[in-house]
Amino acid sequence: VSHLELWALATPHRFVEGDDLVEHLLAALSAHDQALLDGDVVVVTSKVVSKVEGRVVPVGPDVSDKVALVESEATRILRRRGPLRLTETTHGFVNANAGVDLSNTESGTAVLLPRDPDKSARALRATLEHRLKIRLAVIVTDTFGRAWRNGVTDVAIGSAGITPILDLRGTTDDTGRVLEATEVAVVDEIAGAANLVLAKNAGAPFCIVRGITPTWLGTGSVVEHIVRAPAGDLFR
Amino acid sequence: VSHLELWALATPHRFVEGDDLVEHLLAALSAHDQALLDGDVVVVTSKVVSKVEGRVVPVGPDVSDKVALVESEATRILRRRGPLRLTETTHGFVNANAGVDLSNTESGTAVLLPRDPDKSARALRATLEHRLKIRLAVIVTDTFGRAWRNGVTDVAIGSAGITPILDLRGTTDDTGRVLEATEVAVVDEIAGAANLVLAKNAGAPFCIVRGITPTWLGTGSVVEHIVRAPAGDLFR
Repeated sequence: VSHLELWALATPHRFVEGDDLVEHLLAALSAHDQALLDGDVVVVTSKVVSKVEGRVVPVGPDVSDKVALVESEATRILRRRGPLRLTETTHGFVNANAGVDLSNTESGTAVLLPRDPDKSARALRATLEHRLKIRLAVIVTDTFGRAWRNGVTDVAIGSAGITPILDLRGTTDDTGRVLEATEVAVVDEIAGAANLVLAKNAGAPFCIVRGITPTWLGTGSVVEHIVRAPAGDLFR
Repeated sequence: VSHLELWALATPHRFVEGDDLVEHLLAALSAHDQALLDGDVVVVTSKVVSKVEGRVVPVGPDVSDKVALVESEATRILRRRGPLRLTETTHGFVNANAGVDLSNTESGTAVLLPRDPDKSARALRATLEHRLKIRLAVIVTDTFGRAWRNGVTDVAIGSAGITPILDLRGTTDDTGRVLEATEVAVVDEIAGAANLVLAKNAGAPFCIVRGITPTWLGTGSVVEHIVRAPAGDLFR
């Protein structure tokens, strides 16, 4: 039986610029009597990555101030509705309000997305692997809306140590025929799965995912593999 | 620590019209020495739901035959690229090729989406709850592409016994401020999580998800709550 397990790791710490995410992750693991094992995926919310990287900026109290900040963060605006901006970001993500987050931050401030979440994931992974002497993957997540469907889901905005898209093309299905293209965005499915346990723990910044197929550990990045090039995009 | 566990349940059975999904699910559980517990979510792939409901149709060998079938299943075509059709279905889903599936079926046939996947989920749940005398949720999944991001993920196309969108608006965040809108599409996050274990077991039609917050058990349906009305949709 294939099996997957996920744990949320909460911490009472309020993250600020310069904090060491690895130290806080290891402390949270220890506090919960948990340890990372070879092949685990560590999921980290972009909010704490942004905070430790100093991506907190002042913003005025008016809606117009917030919209101005969003528009300054966006490289392109795809749609406008009231104060909502459907944007493209410097990373190439298409999301609401350029990922500018006005919740979970001190009043009068906003949290911007990490400048390079793949790089953040790589740095976190390198430090963890060096400290623990095991192979790990790291995924940085954020909450995105979707076209055509209500509600938000968490998706990967950065990753390291894992193949972002698992290519099942060419494998045979249960009738022995070759499958059509099924390139599964596993980093996004893991991000959404992690949110199921994080949503139960408001404020928990870390989730451990145990049980992914070892061959999924690999290379690639979210910006390189998940972001669809505008030229190939039917909705941009 | 919040914890979530998922298991794939494979079966050697090739599903055909009229098969009893509940019998096969219970047999697969028994074969894997597993039992359903109160509060579990049972995830079923739409492919087997369609097959037992007789949604298998003949299709000619040419690309034009396949495109014709797709177009006959679609209520609206949003984009065309080569043989690909980005469609709206009778359910209101926006997906590729109206969900018509040419893999995992006998040559010369195609599998259509269930007519009413929410109803399929409700029927499956009612029978399981009656048989086992426990509360369960059921989610029927299919594989969809996304705008702006490469790769596919599994999403919910039908559900029963679970609140499809978890409304966290009005709850306070870790700084004590009221959170902005975060309506989490938990049925989609569960569907994607289930695919992580199903993808490791080509052909496994069932996944058990254990550990969701009991208050998530509730009412609602995918078509009613997840499908965004065209009038409120910025990309239709």
